[in-house]
Amino acid sequence: MKRKTYDALMEPMQRELVAVARWARLHGERIVVVMEGRDTAGKGGSIKAITEHLDTRQFRVVALPKPSEREQGQWYFQRYIEHLPTRGEIVLFDRSWYNRAGVERVMGFATAAQVDTFLRETPLFERSIAGDGIRLLKYWLCCDQAQQEERFTERRCDPLKAWKLSPIDVAARARYEEYTDAREAMLAATHTEQAPWTLVDFNDQRIGRLTLVRHLLDQFPDAALDHETPVAPEFPPLPRKPRRERYTVLKPLAPMVGDDGD
Amino acid sequence: MKRKTYDALMEPMQRELVAVARWARLHGERIVVVMEGRDTAGKGGSIKAITEHLDTRQFRVVALPKPSEREQGQWYFQRYIEHLPTRGEIVLFDRSWYNRAGVERVMGFATAAQVDTFLRETPLFERSIAGDGIRLLKYWLCCDQAQQEERFTERRCDPLKAWKLSPIDVAARARYEEYTDAREAMLAATHTEQAPWTLVDFNDQRIGRLTLVRHLLDQFPDAALDHETPVAPEFPPLPRKPRRERYTVLKPLAPMVGDDGD
Amino acid sequence: MKRKTYDALMEPMQRELVAVARWARLHGERIVVVMEGRDTAGKGGSIKAITEHLDTRQFRVVALPKPSEREQGQWYFQRYIEHLPTRGEIVLFDRSWYNRAGVERVMGFATAAQVDTFLRETPLFERSIAGDGIRLLKYWLCCDQAQQEERFTERRCDPLKAWKLSPIDVAARARYEEYTDAREAMLAATHTEQAPWTLVDFNDQRIGRLTLVRHLLDQFPDAALDHETPVAPEFPPLPRKPRRERYTVLKPLAPMVGDDGD
Amino acid sequence: MKRKTYDALMEPMQRELVAVARWARLHGERIVVVMEGRDTAGKGGSIKAITEHLDTRQFRVVALPKPSEREQGQWYFQRYIEHLPTRGEIVLFDRSWYNRAGVERVMGFATAAQVDTFLRETPLFERSIAGDGIRLLKYWLCCDQAQQEERFTERRCDPLKAWKLSPIDVAARARYEEYTDAREAMLAATHTEQAPWTLVDFNDQRIGRLTLVRHLLDQFPDAALDHETPVAPEFPPLPRKPRRERYTVLKPLAPMVGDDGD
Repeated sequence: MKRKTYDALMEPMQRELVAVARWARLHGERIVVVMEGRDTAGKGGSIKAITEHLDTRQFRVVALPKPSEREQGQWYFQRYIEHLPTRGEIVLFDRSWYNRAGVERVMGFATAAQVDTFLRETPLFERSIAGDGIRLLKYWLCCDQAQQEERFTERRCDPLKAWKLSPIDVAARARYEEYTDAREAMLAATHTEQAPWTLVDFNDQRIGRLTLVRHLLDQFPDAALDHETPVAPEFPPLPRKPRRERYTVLKPLAPMVGDDGD
Repeated sequence: MKRKTYDALMEPMQRELVAVARWARLHGERIVVVMEGRDTAGKGGSIKAITEHLDTRQFRVVALPKPSEREQGQWYFQRYIEHLPTRGEIVLFDRSWYNRAGVERVMGFATAAQVDTFLRETPLFERSIAGDGIRLLKYWLCCDQAQQEERFTERRCDPLKAWKLSPIDVAARARYEEYTDAREAMLAATHTEQAPWTLVDFNDQRIGRLTLVRHLLDQFPDAALDHETPVAPEFPPLPRKPRRERYTVLKPLAPMVGDDGD
Repeated sequence: MKRKTYDALMEPMQRELVAVARWARLHGERIVVVMEGRDTAGKGGSIKAITEHLDTRQFRVVALPKPSEREQGQWYFQRYIEHLPTRGEIVLFDRSWYNRAGVERVMGFATAAQVDTFLRETPLFERSIAGDGIRLLKYWLCCDQAQQEERFTERRCDPLKAWKLSPIDVAARARYEEYTDAREAMLAATHTEQAPWTLVDFNDQRIGRLTLVRHLLDQFPDAALDHETPVAPEFPPLPRKPRRERYTVLKPLAPMVGDDGD
Repeated sequence: MKRKTYDALMEPMQRELVAVARWARLHGERIVVVMEGRDTAGKGGSIKAITEHLDTRQFRVVALPKPSEREQGQWYFQRYIEHLPTRGEIVLFDRSWYNRAGVERVMGFATAAQVDTFLRETPLFERSIAGDGIRLLKYWLCCDQAQQEERFTERRCDPLKAWKLSPIDVAARARYEEYTDAREAMLAATHTEQAPWTLVDFNDQRIGRLTLVRHLLDQFPDAALDHETPVAPEFPPLPRKPRRERYTVLKPLAPMVGDDGD
């Protein structure tokens, strides 16, 4: 899909996202978005698309590093629970507790017993938080291996992205099928009524993002999407001529470059 | 400045930013960027520009909500200190402890005594953390009131941005001069050798961002900017034909839209 | 029961407690003790008896204040989960999440719907953490109202204890029966196989403490109670005559009182 | 000093402590007590004496374990700052940031440069928090090596205490003089006007505790020590005969032992 088409379709949805955020704040709603999926599928880009126009004081993106020794000794969900939202907040997990059923399983960082416990306990945990009223949306972003290879290649050649490629990525790349198996086992165990999964095809990332955001918006009541209400306060005219900056202690830097003639 | 010019100038600096982040990780450096300035000046956009290509697991943007009752009773700096970086991390404060010398002072949320204490104690606090080796960069983004008015008007008319305008914004808008005075007092007290301020003119936001990022990069040793080292690991050819997605439990959503013909 | 009898019976159990703590540390066991019961029944004293000889770095007593506004908006269990133990730790809750089914219900601080949700969700939550291997011991300390009255009177007349009497205590005192009803409802809902309750009669506080500690010890495998193993390291003789304190900067305070002749 | 003499002298001071705590709560005062000193000197016992009759929801004893890897990378004071009190709270540090100038220095866990930095930075840090109004009381408990040896021997022979003896204790025991030197250097650098040290002779632990508590009480205004004000609320007579416990779901445990005839 071309950028222009994409922008034209995304723009009105951005307004709906802003409306949902406003509604969440007014009604004290708590929203959790779990973003999982293939390496390179587009998790980060989707999170950016969702949060682009939201208030940085209302949402948080949670991308936890590997657990500390102390955290490793705790209840598996504890370090994630700490980041759950309070009234009016939106939390997006860029990878989540599902690491255990994905990368940890496939790469052998978790034992089979740990994975089994995880698959048995996760529905209980999610039922608890959903039962408490937290709106839990779980997305898994799919793409074919050919697409993945193409994106890996692209990353390797882009100096802005090459650092994203870790040895684990290299190792994981050859295990596409095992990841598929792991995902299917995960879906079988954790696609529940209270906390269903949504799969989104990200072979085309723009179409994927549009589809995901549309689905996300449709999970909220119509009232939440009503973005027509005017919210901006009135601005009376200034009482006097606008002032200019005035420096007595320190001057600004010289601009790096001049105007467009430069 | 035109977008094309801007992109051409920003792109190589993005590579340097990625290099600095890599260097910080390798050397266990801790970086704190304090982003302050006029309403509408461009703090959020600058943070996005800096972090755009960084690893979400390496940096954090800290935008604290108003303090809880418990936090109000604590040492003023305590809730900020909690977010300081550990080895290899980059933390960007979108507004910071300087709230007390800015909005809190101008809008009367802090007493004169509290502001005085703040201006006296802040250099000590910053000297402590800088003395511990944290690299502390403090930016204040300037713009003339005419520019600010223009941007406020633009926001009011943009449904994606109107929500950003709070009653405090309306009240603050008429106090441009008081903000100038507050800033000058803040600079007089807190522009220190260990923790100097840098003012950046954001009357043109693109030029402002370029200038700010160039200055930020220049604070690091040359080695940190060396972005030529290849970092991508080798990718051996896949042992067999790329696989496709395979669904046994749940199918992906129907795409919201088809291909560009749509 | 007389103090002497009590001490003679408690002393060997203290040794077993030390042995259990050592065992927990060695085996990475996590222990949670929930201490609930009537006002004045003896929760605090029981916690002191249990922890008296333990390492302050191994156990924590968690007595949470009323929730902040932020915490009120979170999943009910969140602020308690934060304090769950990591490997080798012992956490004692002096009152706990069961506040909702006790004081909050009886005094009207929680709605009937909140209490219902709590009674329904708690077994799930506890099953999750017990299923993760946390050893969860829940005690409810009982005493008749005549005893309670006597202790309240004693407290009112003791300047060291009078401050413990809050207006809520006064109000709660007349609702003994409602607390009984609340407890019975709580037991009916949350006395589960994975997380059973133990009621202990504290009409005699010394007998109550002995009974509680004996029961607690019996929940651990025999190996954990084996306190005969010598653990103290060898202390070689000092290479030279013991030194005395030597002050060059500051002298100690004059002692408040001299020797016993005083 | 005999126990009876000690109790008679301590009891009225306990009332003053309760009065100070009440005063701190009413006036929103924040109190920090740093408890440092020789191994076996009596830090733990002093903390117990101070807190014995205080409200567990008002004070916290902070005894931090060795820092995690993440904490090791942070500003040295960060993990301590997290535990500083809010309005109305009392925090007692059982060992503190001064570890660096004591055990870490003597046992070689910190480099000379780290110790130097610590000694230079600590006065700044303490001046900051004291300047913010936190009442900071720093005690160092002294005892001669002969006394220390005696107590070590006592511990080794007491099954309730033997576990307290770590290999570090054994190693530290032979370095009594080095600890003296370390303390003197610490005093020279950190005994400041804003945050003075108080040394207390603990060769007799009871005299030591009395002396310390007396000194502590004398740091507060007279009003804080006024413990005569009646605080207990009125208790109207119960409207009807006291009720007895009534069990429908679960019975209490059989008492471990019967009455004193046993």
